[in-house]
Parts: sequence; C-alpha cells; structure tokens
Amino acid sequence: MISDREKAAFEAGIKLGALYHQWVGAPISIATASSLERAIEESVALQPFVTGVKVRLVHDRIISNPFGYSEVKGDLFDVELSTRVGHACCRATLAYKGGYPLMSIVALDPCDRPAPD
Amino acid sequence: MISDREKAAFEAGIKLGALYHQWVGAPISIATASSLERAIEESVALQPFVTGVKVRLVHDRIISNPFGYSEVKGDLFDVELSTRVGHACCRATLAYKGGYPLMSIVALDPCDRPAPD
Amino acid sequence: MISDREKAAFEAGIKLGALYHQWVGAPISIATASSLERAIEESVALQPFVTGVKVRLVHDRIISNPFGYSEVKGDLFDVELSTRVGHACCRATLAYKGGYPLMSIVALDPCDRPAPD
Amino acid sequence: MISDREKAAFEAGIKLGALYHQWVGAPISIATASSLERAIEESVALQPFVTGVKVRLVHDRIISNPFGYSEVKGDLFDVELSTRVGHACCRATLAYKGGYPLMSIVALDPCDRPAPD
Repeated sequence: MISDREKAAFEAGIKLGALYHQWVGAPISIATASSLERAIEESVALQPFVTGVKVRLVHDRIISNPFGYSEVKGDLFDVELSTRVGHACCRATLAYKGGYPLMSIVALDPCDRPAPD
Repeated sequence: MISDREKAAFEAGIKLGALYHQWVGAPISIATASSLERAIEESVALQPFVTGVKVRLVHDRIISNPFGYSEVKGDLFDVELSTRVGHACCRATLAYKGGYPLMSIVALDPCDRPAPD
Repeated sequence: MISDREKAAFEAGIKLGALYHQWVGAPISIATASSLERAIEESVALQPFVTGVKVRLVHDRIISNPFGYSEVKGDLFDVELSTRVGHACCRATLAYKGGYPLMSIVALDPCDRPAPD
Repeated sequence: MISDREKAAFEAGIKLGALYHQWVGAPISIATASSLERAIEESVALQPFVTGVKVRLVHDRIISNPFGYSEVKGDLFDVELSTRVGHACCRATLAYKGGYPLMSIVALDPCDRPAPD
C-alpha cells in the first residue's frame, strides 16, 4: 500500500530530477534568463500531478565565459514545485546548498483546496 | 514531519526523472546497448540513497534510422531502482506502458537488512 | 590551413548538434511551443559566430500522450541557423526528412554585409 | 557548391556539439569514468561520417561533491574526433582552454586511405 502522501513525494522527486537534467547545459546570459525561466516553468507545469512551479536562475551566479555568455549549471537553480495526489499536497525545492544542488521536501500536507475536476 | 518512507519515495522519483532526461537522445544501436546500460547503471548508483539499479534498453524497440543506428527514446527504458532512507526501502520502476514512459513505486517497505555503516 | 568557409561550416554544425541534444526530451504542448521556441532561439543566439537562428517546433507533430502533453523529439525540429567567420557566412538547417532529423548546409557564401565591429 | 572539406568540417561540428550537450550533467566518479568514456565513444561512433573518436574525461578535474561523486561538466572533456566526407578527412577536438570547452578543427586534409566500401 502506497499512500497519497508517498505518491505526491515521488511525483515531486520525478519532476525535480527531470528538470535538472533536462536543462543543465543550456546556454544562458542575464539577458536571456527570464525567457528560459518561463520556458522551464511552462514545460514542467505540463507534467502530471504538478500544481505549481516557480523557477529562478540565480542571476548573480551567471558568470560570463570568454565569449560573453554562460550555461545552466547546478548552482543556478532556485526552484519551488508543488504536486498533488488525491488529498496530499507536496511542496519541494531545488536549491544550491553546501556545494550541491539539493532537492528537498519542504511540506507534505493535506491539501488546502478540493481537487480540481 | 516527513517520514523515511516519504523521503525514500521522493529520492526514487528524483533518480528516475534524472535518468530519463539525462540519457534520452543518446545515439544507440543493438551492438552498443549493453555498454550504455552499464554506464547508466554505474552513473545512477553514484547518487545518494540509491541501493540498487538495473537498466535494460529494450532491444526489440531499437529501430534503425536510415543511417543504421537509433537514439534513446522513452519506449526503450526498462528500469528498476531501489532507494533507502533510514529504515524505509523504496523500489520503483520506469517502463513504457500505454504509450508513456511510466514511473511507479512498486514497493515501499521496512528494509530487510540493517543499513550499511 | 583551415579557411573561413570551413570554420563557418564547423561552427554551424556545432550549434545544430548542440541544439538537438540540449532540448530533445523537454516536455511540450501546442500551448507552450512558442515560449520554448523563443527560449531556444535566445539560447542559441548567445553562442559564438551565430548571426541568426529561427526555431519552429512543428505543431502538427506535437502528439499528446495519455497525460495530455508531449515531449521534444527529432521530428519536431524545423531550424534555420546562420554563422559567420571572417567573410564567410554559412546557412544550415535541421529538419526531419526521410525518418531522420537531418542537418544540412544550405548556403556557404561570402557575406553580404561587412562584419559587425 | 559545398566542398567535401566543408561538409567534413560541418559533420565534425555536429558531433562535438551533440556530444557536449548529450552527456553534460551525467553523474560520474573516478571509478565510473572509464565506463562512461567507452559508452560515449561507442555512441558517437554510430553517427554518420564518423571515422574515429577518443574520449577522455579528465580524472584530475573530477571533484567530489559532499555526496562523494561529481557530474560531467565542460572542463572534463578531452575529445578527439575524425570525420570523412568523400576524400576529405577532418580531425577536430573538444578541450577546456581559457575557461571554455573549446571545439576546434585541428586538421582538414585529403584522406590517407581510400574510403571504405
């Protein structure tokens, strides 16, 4: 027996792992960061069980290479994501901590609102 | 409060989502499939909380393009992965079902064995 | 001795190969295709020697999976890209032809305009 | 008119750009580097016009994160690749120079040997 809470946590993990490995390596600059943030958010929001996603690519850490741009690396991600399975809602984050792009569950609770139809 | 079971499910999700999006698109043929399977397994096994991983790229679905090779697509994956957090052990799979590369928890139980040191 | 024409061709190849393998696998739907097209264009345009890029993800081939979205695959790409090295300008395309995402040089000529400063 | 030399340069560019963006982000350690090097070589060798490929992931730059492994980044690649189109043979490299994963043509010559059948 797998509970809704456990499934919501599993689904949140899937989306964060997917997000990291899909977008790492993409060319980026401070000027293009927001268009990439929106594209990532729209892309992630398509996936099943996702109820919300907020992506920030930390501008201060976008360091130009000799050709004047950078690429998406683990230290750029600042992501908050929500999933829902049944009545369980999971909120999880991806953020760079202690030299590692850490993915964590920050809340796993009964949902505030009824499920959408 | 997040339980060990929920964390083990979250970690299993991370690894499956990561695996899919890291390796999709890689050139492959039947002749090279097993070397790629081993490379994926060794790579995934490095990640935290992973206690086992078995990757098969379904040979029957490796269809040659006009240049005599193929690429890793969602229908090729047949993966089983185990994670452990504290005393909770999660077993999850990635397999192509109903036209979708589905990720599922197949077991989430107290671990059989004591944790390694 | 490598000519500017040869270098411009090499640079065009780099960008098309990079583009394909960076973005393949990203979740997409018809509703999100244009935001992803813009993000890819802005990303590719950052790279050295690129003078122009036009990305279309062919809407007719965005087929929904059972969860109502799709992912970027080889048959979606319709890309035209220009590079310049010295006085040589290369125009190259990525398009799905004969069951393969084919990359081709379509023109390699002296540039019409003087180089930007 | 595009010459064989120009096409060989274009094809070499495609393969190096593809290689970089396919494999960047993959979990790696010194213990798993050689299995990944072999998998990349076998994968790249499948692609059209490739006549040789040698991949080294520079061990000295595989720096462990807090969880005891690392991931493939731009500074790890040391790649040499050969392509052939008609009678033209191109040798190109990917190596980290001046803070950038630089792709360069190192030779573009008439081939030493007749084309394989």
